[in-house]
Amino acid sequence: GHPMVVMAGMNVLESRDLALRICEHLKGVCDKLGLPYVFKASFDKANRSSISSYRGPGLEEGLKILADVKAEFGVPVITDYHTPEQAGPVAEVAEIIQVPAFLCRQTDLVVAGAEAVKARDGWLHVKKAQFLAPWDCKNIITKVGEVTGPKNPTILCERGASFGYNNLVVDMLGIPVMKQLGVPVTIDATHAVQLPGADPRTAGGSTGGRREGVAVIAKSAMAAGADGVFLEFHPDPDKALCDGPSCLPLEAAEPLLKTLKTIHQAVRA
Amino acid sequence: GHPMVVMAGMNVLESRDLALRICEHLKGVCDKLGLPYVFKASFDKANRSSISSYRGPGLEEGLKILADVKAEFGVPVITDYHTPEQAGPVAEVAEIIQVPAFLCRQTDLVVAGAEAVKARDGWLHVKKAQFLAPWDCKNIITKVGEVTGPKNPTILCERGASFGYNNLVVDMLGIPVMKQLGVPVTIDATHAVQLPGADPRTAGGSTGGRREGVAVIAKSAMAAGADGVFLEFHPDPDKALCDGPSCLPLEAAEPLLKTLKTIHQAVRA
Amino acid sequence: GHPMVVMAGMNVLESRDLALRICEHLKGVCDKLGLPYVFKASFDKANRSSISSYRGPGLEEGLKILADVKAEFGVPVITDYHTPEQAGPVAEVAEIIQVPAFLCRQTDLVVAGAEAVKARDGWLHVKKAQFLAPWDCKNIITKVGEVTGPKNPTILCERGASFGYNNLVVDMLGIPVMKQLGVPVTIDATHAVQLPGADPRTAGGSTGGRREGVAVIAKSAMAAGADGVFLEFHPDPDKALCDGPSCLPLEAAEPLLKTLKTIHQAVRA
Amino acid sequence: GHPMVVMAGMNVLESRDLALRICEHLKGVCDKLGLPYVFKASFDKANRSSISSYRGPGLEEGLKILADVKAEFGVPVITDYHTPEQAGPVAEVAEIIQVPAFLCRQTDLVVAGAEAVKARDGWLHVKKAQFLAPWDCKNIITKVGEVTGPKNPTILCERGASFGYNNLVVDMLGIPVMKQLGVPVTIDATHAVQLPGADPRTAGGSTGGRREGVAVIAKSAMAAGADGVFLEFHPDPDKALCDGPSCLPLEAAEPLLKTLKTIHQAVRA
Repeated sequence: GHPMVVMAGMNVLESRDLALRICEHLKGVCDKLGLPYVFKASFDKANRSSISSYRGPGLEEGLKILADVKAEFGVPVITDYHTPEQAGPVAEVAEIIQVPAFLCRQTDLVVAGAEAVKARDGWLHVKKAQFLAPWDCKNIITKVGEVTGPKNPTILCERGASFGYNNLVVDMLGIPVMKQLGVPVTIDATHAVQLPGADPRTAGGSTGGRREGVAVIAKSAMAAGADGVFLEFHPDPDKALCDGPSCLPLEAAEPLLKTLKTIHQAVRA
Repeated sequence: GHPMVVMAGMNVLESRDLALRICEHLKGVCDKLGLPYVFKASFDKANRSSISSYRGPGLEEGLKILADVKAEFGVPVITDYHTPEQAGPVAEVAEIIQVPAFLCRQTDLVVAGAEAVKARDGWLHVKKAQFLAPWDCKNIITKVGEVTGPKNPTILCERGASFGYNNLVVDMLGIPVMKQLGVPVTIDATHAVQLPGADPRTAGGSTGGRREGVAVIAKSAMAAGADGVFLEFHPDPDKALCDGPSCLPLEAAEPLLKTLKTIHQAVRA
Repeated sequence: GHPMVVMAGMNVLESRDLALRICEHLKGVCDKLGLPYVFKASFDKANRSSISSYRGPGLEEGLKILADVKAEFGVPVITDYHTPEQAGPVAEVAEIIQVPAFLCRQTDLVVAGAEAVKARDGWLHVKKAQFLAPWDCKNIITKVGEVTGPKNPTILCERGASFGYNNLVVDMLGIPVMKQLGVPVTIDATHAVQLPGADPRTAGGSTGGRREGVAVIAKSAMAAGADGVFLEFHPDPDKALCDGPSCLPLEAAEPLLKTLKTIHQAVRA
Repeated sequence: GHPMVVMAGMNVLESRDLALRICEHLKGVCDKLGLPYVFKASFDKANRSSISSYRGPGLEEGLKILADVKAEFGVPVITDYHTPEQAGPVAEVAEIIQVPAFLCRQTDLVVAGAEAVKARDGWLHVKKAQFLAPWDCKNIITKVGEVTGPKNPTILCERGASFGYNNLVVDMLGIPVMKQLGVPVTIDATHAVQLPGADPRTAGGSTGGRREGVAVIAKSAMAAGADGVFLEFHPDPDKALCDGPSCLPLEAAEPLLKTLKTIHQAVRA
C-alpha cells in the first residue's frame, strides 16, 4: 500500500527564514522515516476570531516564500486559498491547494479550485467543515468531479465536528465513511484539538488549543485508517503568531511520526 | 418599546412577478398588524449542497427585481452578499445586507459589509454560524465596530447550532446572551428547522426541513426575547425552487405573525 | 382547553417549616392567577455529583412532611422515587410520582411506578433523560401502558438534552413531538438551565445553573406548546442546600407565572 | 508495562452452553496472544428500550452460569449489577463488577459496589455515562475512594457520549483525561457504536449498532492510550438476543486482538 503522507509545516508564514528552517527539519525527519513529505503554510488567515489577529504576508509575498521553499528543498507544498480568484495563482505554486473548512460548501470556490488543479494535475485538499457530516462530503466530491471528470483529485481532511459550544470532537467512525467515498483521507490533528471561539470564561478573542491532544488525535486517526497526517510545528510554539496552543515543537516531529507510521502499517497488515 | 420587526419574503428570487406577489401579501398583513416590514429574497444561493441545485438570477438581475419591489411597495429590503466586492452594489439597493452563516467569520467579507452599510446608513444582518457560540458573536460585532465606530449597525440572527449530524438545535438561552452584546437579535425560524446536509438514509443531496416546526421556533424565540422574526414564504411551498420543506404558505403569515406579536408584547409587559 | 398546570416548590426538603412556607406562597399566587397548583419537593437526591452533597431527609421523614403540606393546604403533591420498592409508599402520599431522568430507561422502576399510580388513579411524571430523543419517549409510554391499559397516566417532562460537555440544550421542537405521543408535556425550566457535572475550570463538584435562564426556558416552552411548568423556588436561593444556582426567589413566582399564563393562552387562541 | 486487558464475551447470557463456547474460543485466542482475559456476560438487561425485549436469565441462574464458566476455564469474570442489593452476591462470583452507564451517578449503587469489591479485593468497572464529561468521572472515583481508601479499585470505561439524537461519539481526547484521574481505562467498543434509541425513521424499538465500526473504535482507543478493551461476540451475531447489530462474530476475535495488541505496544514504546 501507499505509505503514510505527511503534510506538515507551520500555521501561517511568519518569515522566509522560519519557513526554510521548519521545512528543513521536517523533510529530514520524513526522509529518515521513508515518508512522503509536503510542506504546509498559510499566506493569509482570513477567518480569525478577532480583527486584530495576525493574518500573514498575503498572497503575493506568501507565494514567493513558498516557491523559495520548494526551490531549496525540492518538496511539494500545500496552502489554502480563500476566493475563487486566488485558486489559479495558488495552484501555480502549490501542488495541493486547500479549501478552508468554513468555506467547503461555497460552490464557486470549490469549482474554481477544481479547475485550477485540473489544469496542473494537482490535488484539492478539502477540510471537512465543523458542521458537516462525513457522508455529506459526497456532495463536495461530486462538485469537483463535475469539473475534473472521473480522475477526481479530492483529498478529504477531518478536523473535528462541533460538539456543543467552544469544543470539537473527532468522530473516528467518520474516517472510514469518508474513505468509502473513494478519496484519500487525512487528519488535521492540529486544528482538531482547538477549542473554537472566545470562551466567555476566559474572555478570549482567539481560538485555544490543547497541545497534548495533537498526538492523541493523530494516532487514533491512523488507527482508524487515515491515509495521511496534517500537523503544524514551530521551533517555539508559545511564540507562534497564530494558534500556538495547538502547535507542536519541532523536536516532537520524529517520535510522533515514527509511532504514526507503525500504526499506519499495523492496521494495514 | 420597538415593535417586532418582520423580515419576510422568499428564499431565492424565482421571478419578478412572484416577488411582487409575495411582498404584496406580506406587506398587507404587516400593515394590518402594525408591524414594520422588510422584504427578503436572495439573488444567489452560493452554498447549496449539490452543484445541480437552482442558484437564482444572480447579482445584476436580482438587484433589479429587488429595486422593482421597493419601488412598487415602498418597503425596505434585505438580501445576502457572498464576496467583499458584492457588498457595495448590494447596499445600494438593500437597506439591510446579510452575511451568510457559514461566512460570518470571514474578516474581509464582514469588513466590506460594514463599510458598505456605514456609507449608506444601513444595517448588517449577521447570521450566527452553526458552529458559533452566542457569546462568540462579540468578535463579529467588534470587527464591524472597528469600521463603523460606536453606532454599530449589526443585527445578529439566530438560525440554529449544529447538534450531532444532520440536525440543528436552537438554544433559546443564546438569545438573551446575544442581546446583551448590545445589538438587536432576530430569529430565522425558517432555516433553524432545516435538517442540514445529505442524510445517508434518504440519499438526499439537498437540505431538508420541517415546516411544522417553523412556527414553534418563531414563537419560542419571541418568548425568549427576540426583537424580530425572519421567515420565508411561497404561494405553493412544495414547488419552491429552494428549501421548500421549510417554507410556509402565504396564508400562514397572518395568524402566525399575530401570535408572535402577542408573545413579543407579553414578555415586554 | 385545560389551564396551564404549575408544579412548583423546592428542590429537596430542607425542613417542614420551609416546605409549608414555600407551598403557602406558591398556592397563593396560583389561586390568584387561577392556575392548578401541585407542590413539588424531593426527599432524597440519589444522584448528586459529589458524595458529600446534602441528600435530604429520606423516605419516611420526607413523606411525613409532604403529608403535612397536603393536610395544611389541600394541594396535590409530586415527588420522585428511586427504586421499585419506593413506588408504592410514595404513591400513597403523592398524586404524581416522578421517574428521575437518568433512570427513565430502567424497566423495573417504570413498571413499579405504573403499578403504583394505577392502583391509586395517580400520574407518572417521567423526566426525559439528557441522552434521549423526544420520539424515543414512546417506548416509555408503551412500558407504562402495558401495565395500566389504555388510560395511560404518563406525563412527559422536558429538562434538556446533552449538548457537548457540561451543558444542556432544550430543543423546543421536541415539545410538540412529545405531545404527539398523546400525553401532557411539562417543562422543568429549573433543571434545564443546569450546567451539569464538574467543570474542570471551576474544579466544582456540583452541578451549576443559570438562574436568569429559568424564565427564558419556561416562556419559550410555553410558546412551543407545553401544558405545564415545573419550577423550584427558595426564599433565599443562594442558601438553598441543593441546586441553588438554578433556583428562583419566591417573589419571582407571580410575575413569571402571569407571563407564562399569557403565552400559554396566546398559542392556544 | 502491563499488557492490554481483554474483557470479552457475550452481551446477555443466552444459555450455559453458549457461554462456555464463547469463553473457550476467546480464552484460546488470548492465551495465544499472551493477553490477560476476563469473561463478560450480563444476567439482566434492565434498561432495554422496549418492554418486550429479552432481559436474560436473571440474577440467580445467571450467577450459576458464570460460576460454571469460571470453574471450567479458570478465568475471572465481569458482569453488571443494577441495584445496591445485587452488589454483594454479584461480587461473590465476579472479580469485576460493573456499574451500568445510565446508573453511574447513583450514589447508593456506587457505594454498595465499592463495599462489595473492597470486601473481596475485586474491581469496580464503571461505564462512563453518555451524559458525562471525562473529567466528571473524578466524582465517581471519589465516591468509591470514600469507601475503599487509597487503594481505589475503580476502572473507568469509555462507551461514547451523546452526539445529537440517536447517535454517540467517542472523544478520544477523553481517554488520557480519564487516565490522568489515576485509574485504568477501558474502551467498550461494542456499545460505543450503538445508535441509541428508537430512530423515528426506522420505527425501531431497540438500539441499533454499526458492526463494522467496532474495530475502528477499539483500534483508535488503543492508539489514544486505553489500557484494555471490552468487546462482545456471538457465533452468529445476527441471531444474538440482544444488540446483535454491534456484536462481532467469534472468528473476528483473533485478528482484531492481534492488531490491538500491536497498537497498544506501539504507543507505549
